[in-house]
Amino acid sequence: MPTQPECAVPDLTTARQAPLLRFESLLREHAADIEAWFRAQWRATPPPFYGSVDLRNAGFKLAPVDTNLFPAGFNNLNPAFEPLCIQALQAAFERVMPTACGVLLIPENHTRNQFYLENVAVLTELIHNAGYRVHVGSLRDDLHEPETLPLASGRELVLHPIQRTADGHVRIDGFTPCLVLLNNDLSGGRPALLENLGQPVIPPLGVGWSSRLKTQHFTQYNAVGAEFGELLGIDPWWVTPMFRNCGSVNFKEHEGEDCVARNVELLLEDIRAKYKQYNVTEEPFVIVKADAGTYGMGVMTVKSGDELRHLNRKTRKKMSATKEGREVDAVIIQEGVPTLERVDGDGELPGGPAEPVVYMIDHYVVGGFYRVNAGRSTQENLNAPGARFKQLAFAEPGVHPHHGGEADCHTNRFYAYGVVARLALLAAAREIAHVHAAEPSVTVAQPVEAA
Amino acid sequence: MPTQPECAVPDLTTARQAPLLRFESLLREHAADIEAWFRAQWRATPPPFYGSVDLRNAGFKLAPVDTNLFPAGFNNLNPAFEPLCIQALQAAFERVMPTACGVLLIPENHTRNQFYLENVAVLTELIHNAGYRVHVGSLRDDLHEPETLPLASGRELVLHPIQRTADGHVRIDGFTPCLVLLNNDLSGGRPALLENLGQPVIPPLGVGWSSRLKTQHFTQYNAVGAEFGELLGIDPWWVTPMFRNCGSVNFKEHEGEDCVARNVELLLEDIRAKYKQYNVTEEPFVIVKADAGTYGMGVMTVKSGDELRHLNRKTRKKMSATKEGREVDAVIIQEGVPTLERVDGDGELPGGPAEPVVYMIDHYVVGGFYRVNAGRSTQENLNAPGARFKQLAFAEPGVHPHHGGEADCHTNRFYAYGVVARLALLAAAREIAHVHAAEPSVTVAQPVEAA
Repeated sequence: MPTQPECAVPDLTTARQAPLLRFESLLREHAADIEAWFRAQWRATPPPFYGSVDLRNAGFKLAPVDTNLFPAGFNNLNPAFEPLCIQALQAAFERVMPTACGVLLIPENHTRNQFYLENVAVLTELIHNAGYRVHVGSLRDDLHEPETLPLASGRELVLHPIQRTADGHVRIDGFTPCLVLLNNDLSGGRPALLENLGQPVIPPLGVGWSSRLKTQHFTQYNAVGAEFGELLGIDPWWVTPMFRNCGSVNFKEHEGEDCVARNVELLLEDIRAKYKQYNVTEEPFVIVKADAGTYGMGVMTVKSGDELRHLNRKTRKKMSATKEGREVDAVIIQEGVPTLERVDGDGELPGGPAEPVVYMIDHYVVGGFYRVNAGRSTQENLNAPGARFKQLAFAEPGVHPHHGGEADCHTNRFYAYGVVARLALLAAAREIAHVHAAEPSVTVAQPVEAA
Repeated sequence: MPTQPECAVPDLTTARQAPLLRFESLLREHAADIEAWFRAQWRATPPPFYGSVDLRNAGFKLAPVDTNLFPAGFNNLNPAFEPLCIQALQAAFERVMPTACGVLLIPENHTRNQFYLENVAVLTELIHNAGYRVHVGSLRDDLHEPETLPLASGRELVLHPIQRTADGHVRIDGFTPCLVLLNNDLSGGRPALLENLGQPVIPPLGVGWSSRLKTQHFTQYNAVGAEFGELLGIDPWWVTPMFRNCGSVNFKEHEGEDCVARNVELLLEDIRAKYKQYNVTEEPFVIVKADAGTYGMGVMTVKSGDELRHLNRKTRKKMSATKEGREVDAVIIQEGVPTLERVDGDGELPGGPAEPVVYMIDHYVVGGFYRVNAGRSTQENLNAPGARFKQLAFAEPGVHPHHGGEADCHTNRFYAYGVVARLALLAAAREIAHVHAAEPSVTVAQPVEAA
């Protein structure tokens, strides 16, 4: 604190290459109003336990394109932010379970993904360091005894089979948790083991991808964006990706394609109108993706309705199923936001287009990383791990703006990320509130409130 | 988080020179119990808004020797912990004032102390970066217009004269706060300007040094230490400095000195018994200090009762008045805890004995620093700024233990500091609860509670 942070970006070329966003100056000038507004929002609607948001920064707009309520990249965060994560976890747990107790963390089943396992190990460590007992329980059918997985980082992860007691509680050998924390997005459906449980399940089963729809999220987000636009006196489009949807779609059976094609055309027209209004010279494009999709699966970039009418077999197949073989029966047709963020190569891996992913615990921003994919264009989904894919931790957590600095100095860039990511988190909070209204039996986290 | 922190102390020799404390291993092993215990304590008694605690690490014991509810060294913290401070401030403000509003920060009056002014500037910046409007209002009688003070760091501090409205609210020109945050320890008395105010005053006037007594704090601390000792199955003495007191004392008039001398002897006997029990070979000593003293004033090291009976004129004078000329009419006779912490010289300043000072906001540890004084012995008060005095920021905030590491690796050393400092913070919380019980009109912060 004795010295002002400098407006330099040591390991990123992005912040300097991006044109100065009028939006970032606005955020900096109105930080007190924005923070007061967020505080009022969290009092009205409790924040999710945690979340991560994929952003796209086009220079002329900064918008979320996906919001994950089961964040899977804690291992990609800057280790320097560990205390920040721990403090936020303590606040989050205090809100959902005021009495002290133990946590059962339930991860995804795909235990061969080393990166994901590192995420689970880091998350477990953070919860442990926050002062809670924590064990990892697996939903895998084939797990009958504890299994120890050695990880590349030198860590070990012990997966325990979960038992359900006669009185409707889950436990593992020697440990009965008082809270179940899901890091499994339930793409495979709501597990019977966790239905009508004696312990609270956070986040609630109803926001897993077996129930959740991206169109619902972005419907909530539209409202949040409009309220935020009103607060700052800006066009909500600056922070909002437009979208459209059709009813049911089956690419394999050629069903509903016409509707998708028509809506792609309508959305492209809307984007063209906005580009004209703001003198944007980019070529409009649209992202079509599974409405309940995740892990970057079932996503395509489209520049005309006709492309939908002439899908080849490979694309049909790609668009027909998502994680765990789940069939795609609906899609979201979302405004494509080009990314002008770019990270340079580092000798080991080539540079490429990048998109920021912001991590939040409770209503606190705790860091993030750039997803860089040298094999993709600025108009494509970058979440396609492979040889030319890397993640680069943010140098700063984005907790506050730098009032003395240039609008696009990295501190302010990260703050802008944090603000827009929290808008998406707020939309997710409203989704969860709807789930709670529909399933009153589930545990309701308390809003941010002094009394 | 991908890599484990190493057990190395880059810029401190202390952690390696200190003998491995069995206590630190215990804390690491019982971290989950300790954190659960603290959570229960904060639910029962709300934490102070902020605080700093001076610790002394003797190797055979680690104890607080002073607890400050108006911390004056935010400028000495590691700038890397700024996000941690901001997050904790957000949590603290949410607890004391759920609705969004502005803060009036009231600092000490001594505006010639550059170090203190930097503290005020940093604190203001942190509150601002936490998303609150904040202005600095001065209690100085001679201030009739805003005064801008340029600081060595390049910062500027603007002091505003405070007005009180007819309906009992304070304001400055163009700004009516909804909360008054005191960074003034009220050694000079309770200011009439702030009595029976329409806005909450945090911390309450009743815990200023015009009302607070160290003996009251350490009475509360005795109870906290005993409860903590029971939790861990350890002798509370490991974390508790014994103390005694007399009634009124007037060193200038030679009144009450016999009582002090007698109690020094009794306390020395108690210390000798404890040293014998634990095979401690150090020479016992006692600290006599003003019961309402602060800023390291009115403090002496004593090794026999006789020393009290033969005070010279200079010492009498030193022990007769403390900050702002306040007369000393009572003292605390406290077990001296030698410090075996030492920081090496750095070319610019010589090395010397060091004591850790831990900073907390709400119930969160947010960092700290070593107070190093080359001109003092390991048995003396180190809080005597001068040419051979420096402060060295902690390399880690002490938020969590390092479960894989050596017991005295620096992460665990800092965690131990954080635990004992929070014990003192809890004692202060209980003091504040007493003040609230006595002055029901003052605003009561809410305990840490989900509901």
